Amino acid sequence: MISKSQIKLITSLSKKKYREQHGFFIAEGPKVIDEFIAEGLELHFHFTTEIVANETHVYHQVTSGELKKISKLTNPNTSLAVFKIPKKNAAITKGVRVVLDGVQDPGNLGTIIRLCDWFGVSQLICSKDTVDCFNPKVVQATMGSLARVVISYVDIKSLLQETTLPIYGGVLEGVSLYSEKIEEDSYLVVGNEGNGISEEIIAILTHKITIPQYGASQKTESLNVATATAILLSEVMRTTGK
Amino acid sequence: MISKSQIKLITSLSKKKYREQHGFFIAEGPKVIDEFIAEGLELHFHFTTEIVANETHVYHQVTSGELKKISKLTNPNTSLAVFKIPKKNAAITKGVRVVLDGVQDPGNLGTIIRLCDWFGVSQLICSKDTVDCFNPKVVQATMGSLARVVISYVDIKSLLQETTLPIYGGVLEGVSLYSEKIEEDSYLVVGNEGNGISEEIIAILTHKITIPQYGASQKTESLNVATATAILLSEVMRTTGK
Repeated sequence: MISKSQIKLITSLSKKKYREQHGFFIAEGPKVIDEFIAEGLELHFHFTTEIVANETHVYHQVTSGELKKISKLTNPNTSLAVFKIPKKNAAITKGVRVVLDGVQDPGNLGTIIRLCDWFGVSQLICSKDTVDCFNPKVVQATMGSLARVVISYVDIKSLLQETTLPIYGGVLEGVSLYSEKIEEDSYLVVGNEGNGISEEIIAILTHKITIPQYGASQKTESLNVATATAILLSEVMRTTGK
Repeated sequence: MISKSQIKLITSLSKKKYREQHGFFIAEGPKVIDEFIAEGLELHFHFTTEIVANETHVYHQVTSGELKKISKLTNPNTSLAVFKIPKKNAAITKGVRVVLDGVQDPGNLGTIIRLCDWFGVSQLICSKDTVDCFNPKVVQATMGSLARVVISYVDIKSLLQETTLPIYGGVLEGVSLYSEKIEEDSYLVVGNEGNGISEEIIAILTHKITIPQYGASQKTESLNVATATAILLSEVMRTTGK
């Protein structure tokens, strides 16, 4: 049984405003939920249609129909949980910090968070207009990585203006990624899906880098931002030999 | 005005069976449609809510309401076109051929097609159970790249069994990508989203390669298949110096 007040809370958590107000976010699917529990995130509710063996936390069994009502997915999974938004860990201030300038698509942010986790990036810094990392679609796309990467939302212009570290940015016309050695202690900026890095941030970059295009046609407009981030981070890791 | 028979045709084109039967596929949005026209694809219908200036082809003006009825998108664009599925170009048989073993997600296939176009991969070979490249969601994700990459659906097991070229495969436990030099004339296999490369194909690989994981936690399950393909292709292009 899901109470009316629980339904109301869960529905409200689709919106960032209410996630901030209540301090909770939603995760769906046993795999994602298990990963968050294993990472020590605090569970508020857990609804599942399955019988959970040896469960170490409280859960509520519900029918598929009940779950469908609260699910944000087109094809609801077998479980939905509400977690407390964790307190921010202090960021480890070394290595490459990835900076997102206005990334809008939840799937792209999710993929970038997984990439940061894979490549051991200590800090993911988002501009304030980047999609919220506790958006249900981002949570689904990141799997457990969301609990392991330190993510902050700041005024990236002020941050980058104040640093003395090199600031690399992925742009369409810059120095080839393969000829530029990216410093291990630095910022790496990638931009919005449609417009790339904003002009005011472009002006602060110390190094503009480009992923060379090899197609005979050279007509491909640009790479997807998550794809570009994957290639940039792989190259950072290869050259810094971490 | 959209006729009943046109609506029926368009609706049927969501399914691969009918795309094959009629020899048509759908593209939505002026940008994608313009790219396909520029690439010389044969237009069958073109419906748009906009007034098209200096139009060199026939189009039908429709209302947003009419467009909504035939659109496959949640947020319909301003135009929808039906194109003839192009005849296959003969593949250029040199360079790295990318082989997909059971990729299911249309967004992933779309991203991989864009990557092949970006990096000048002459041939994309898909196993028969890989999602169809004329699926409306794939078409949306590829933009014009779909018209520029030679894509075929074949029995990849037979194909790979018969070749004398090196066959590289992206797996979780293999030689580091950064220490293995990928031959320019070769096959590069990536696998299904959940299961990776199938066992029967794993058995035929001549080189198993892995994208090293650097995170302290080493808990990230795997990279998304499109992300992994991006990193593999970038490294091929960097080392072959094309």
